[in-house]
Amino acid sequence: MSSVPSNRQRQPVYLDNAASTALAPAAAAAMTAAWTQPGNPSSLHGTGRAARRMLEEARESIARDLGARPSEVIFTGGGTEADNLAIKGIYLARRREDSRRRVIVTSAVEHHAVLDPAQWLADEHDAELVVLPVDAVGSVDPESVRALLAERADEVALISVMWANNEVGTLQPITEIARIGAEYGVPVHSDAVAAAAHLPVDYAASGLSAMTIAAHKFGGPQGMGALFLGRDVTCVPLLHGGGHERDTRSGTQAVASAAGMAAALHTAVAELDEVTARVGALRDRLAGVLTSIPGVSLNGAYAVDPARALAGVVHVSVDNCEGDSLLMLLDAKGVECSTGSACNAGVAAASHVLLAMGLDTATARGSLRFSLGPDNTADDVDVVAGVIGEVVDRARAAGLLSAARARTGGES
Amino acid sequence: MSSVPSNRQRQPVYLDNAASTALAPAAAAAMTAAWTQPGNPSSLHGTGRAARRMLEEARESIARDLGARPSEVIFTGGGTEADNLAIKGIYLARRREDSRRRVIVTSAVEHHAVLDPAQWLADEHDAELVVLPVDAVGSVDPESVRALLAERADEVALISVMWANNEVGTLQPITEIARIGAEYGVPVHSDAVAAAAHLPVDYAASGLSAMTIAAHKFGGPQGMGALFLGRDVTCVPLLHGGGHERDTRSGTQAVASAAGMAAALHTAVAELDEVTARVGALRDRLAGVLTSIPGVSLNGAYAVDPARALAGVVHVSVDNCEGDSLLMLLDAKGVECSTGSACNAGVAAASHVLLAMGLDTATARGSLRFSLGPDNTADDVDVVAGVIGEVVDRARAAGLLSAARARTGGES
Repeated sequence: MSSVPSNRQRQPVYLDNAASTALAPAAAAAMTAAWTQPGNPSSLHGTGRAARRMLEEARESIARDLGARPSEVIFTGGGTEADNLAIKGIYLARRREDSRRRVIVTSAVEHHAVLDPAQWLADEHDAELVVLPVDAVGSVDPESVRALLAERADEVALISVMWANNEVGTLQPITEIARIGAEYGVPVHSDAVAAAAHLPVDYAASGLSAMTIAAHKFGGPQGMGALFLGRDVTCVPLLHGGGHERDTRSGTQAVASAAGMAAALHTAVAELDEVTARVGALRDRLAGVLTSIPGVSLNGAYAVDPARALAGVVHVSVDNCEGDSLLMLLDAKGVECSTGSACNAGVAAASHVLLAMGLDTATARGSLRFSLGPDNTADDVDVVAGVIGEVVDRARAAGLLSAARARTGGES
Repeated sequence: MSSVPSNRQRQPVYLDNAASTALAPAAAAAMTAAWTQPGNPSSLHGTGRAARRMLEEARESIARDLGARPSEVIFTGGGTEADNLAIKGIYLARRREDSRRRVIVTSAVEHHAVLDPAQWLADEHDAELVVLPVDAVGSVDPESVRALLAERADEVALISVMWANNEVGTLQPITEIARIGAEYGVPVHSDAVAAAAHLPVDYAASGLSAMTIAAHKFGGPQGMGALFLGRDVTCVPLLHGGGHERDTRSGTQAVASAAGMAAALHTAVAELDEVTARVGALRDRLAGVLTSIPGVSLNGAYAVDPARALAGVVHVSVDNCEGDSLLMLLDAKGVECSTGSACNAGVAAASHVLLAMGLDTATARGSLRFSLGPDNTADDVDVVAGVIGEVVDRARAAGLLSAARARTGGES
């Protein structure tokens, strides 16, 4: 394999766009333009008003691109903050209105930015968690939501189900879940961090009460996100202070980051059809490369119906391998991917998403996520094709060796 | 005044650096360098490790420049978040350890990012607020802290007193307060948003348990801040999720913003003596210009002892004027300043800071803050000198007119 030795000199093949994307040129341009002047958007003078104008133009652009009203867009410091604000803020507000509303409904495959605030409310604020199961591809059955609400709607503070899963790429039936929530008068939040700008997302049409996005998942800057929040949805703030953002999120707004998020989103939405077609074709090609290796199987909805999956994600399990070994060996060959959510990287536990889908622990631990973005090319897939066989062989050999050592009690 | 008509064509004279500074060239350079590669600092591959390296270098640089250990620096989405995290997080943690600890001690001149979380804890979490009074220049008497702790130390969850006041520029005896807190085993937090990079700040030497900074107050990007938090200070997170930042602040870190904050801080600290001398001289000159107008008086510690005041702030009251009128008239002449905290701009109430200092409401409402930064020059002061007399005359005439109308019940 003559191409391999030169890989370390080349730019690595970045197939971890679901963890963080490169900053889009349009976002960089918008941010550097914003930097040419100082200005706190709350200041009343000309410079402050110019900053406010830039902030509100960003808000309008984001709202337009995702089917919302500008007043529904609450800027936050990222997706995790927006998820925390939705889960804690709506729970505390609904509970205050009616103390019977103790139940928080999530799915078993939510991001920790949803699961962990919900758990905190259970530990500290008397919440009862109901975790909806998923099927073998990670999909929630909307009828499970209906069954629950038919019985306990009065007790439910909110429902939070993600739009698309960040690990395996499975889309959830979010519109149906939102409709069922609306029928019973229960607000539904969706973590749309993996979905927004990667598939058509229309906040108004979705019927959701609240929705989270994060800029660095679609070419915007890190540390910037938004919570879409209906005007009629009460939400206790997480951050108290100057009363910014509808008095729901205090703190001087990051004007340049908002402009960057708006520009990246606008580009992504404008190019959505073209990019998803191209990225989807690359994904199919990459999936073909990976599954040509014996003992490699696809996970998530893509395996059964690509229309129910994110265009850019291929998630595989490789039998008799540790995902971390695969990741490190691929990295050494200049291919960058992940074993799941970057937020849990380095944690040696099997993914809760895969376990919820029914994978056994060993299979779950032997998994890899490749996530493609608009900058990836067929050459990138070819680089994977050139190294994956050897990488899997080595990872399996390492696994056998360490298993043998474990059996004999030998030292490494 | 021949220079006046052309002011609208020129760049405005920006004298509102306490609201938000221009992005420092070093910060812009650091951020654009960070953008040249994608990367989530939690990802395990080469690109992720490079992002992590950049993040940790930023953390180390910030720690070094402010006398802390890197592990004591928790990145946040801004100063308001850091203040909320300190107040709520430390209160909830201390309360959990000992249910008698219900008291939160603040001063009457704190920023709303401290006062409002404290009030929220009083409303929702049974906190008792003790608000320390200030003297006529806005200074807290450390003996008031000692007297309180001598009596009630067991009941105090935390003390939060700002390092420097954001409106009038008065420095607090923060080291003394931290020492008294330490004597009684009570953690002391300080909002150092107005102080850091504007005067020598040494976290370790201060003896504080926690300290807030915000990048956009010293040439860094908006939407970026940090909480300095001692390793031994327990603090309940505000944002739950992936467990970033010592499990105290979840959410993908904004690598570029962290690099920008570090670069801006490093420049500001390196140039601190030179800039404070230069800015201080400009401030003195500006103060002279302003107080040459009859009925204009200086507020804050600067009036009595410049060594106890921020170098860049001149805060004045102008009798028989509305601050908003002065601000708007100055803005029309190309001079940008504020009536107080930008976070409360547009709110027609008198500043709580000035009222706490004993100013009457009318005087408080007739106040202006000018805040200078490293980019300001003597020419800027000359522009103010050229317009301030006319502006005050007009504001007073407008005030007399509206007062007369109010007396006669006339319409505007």
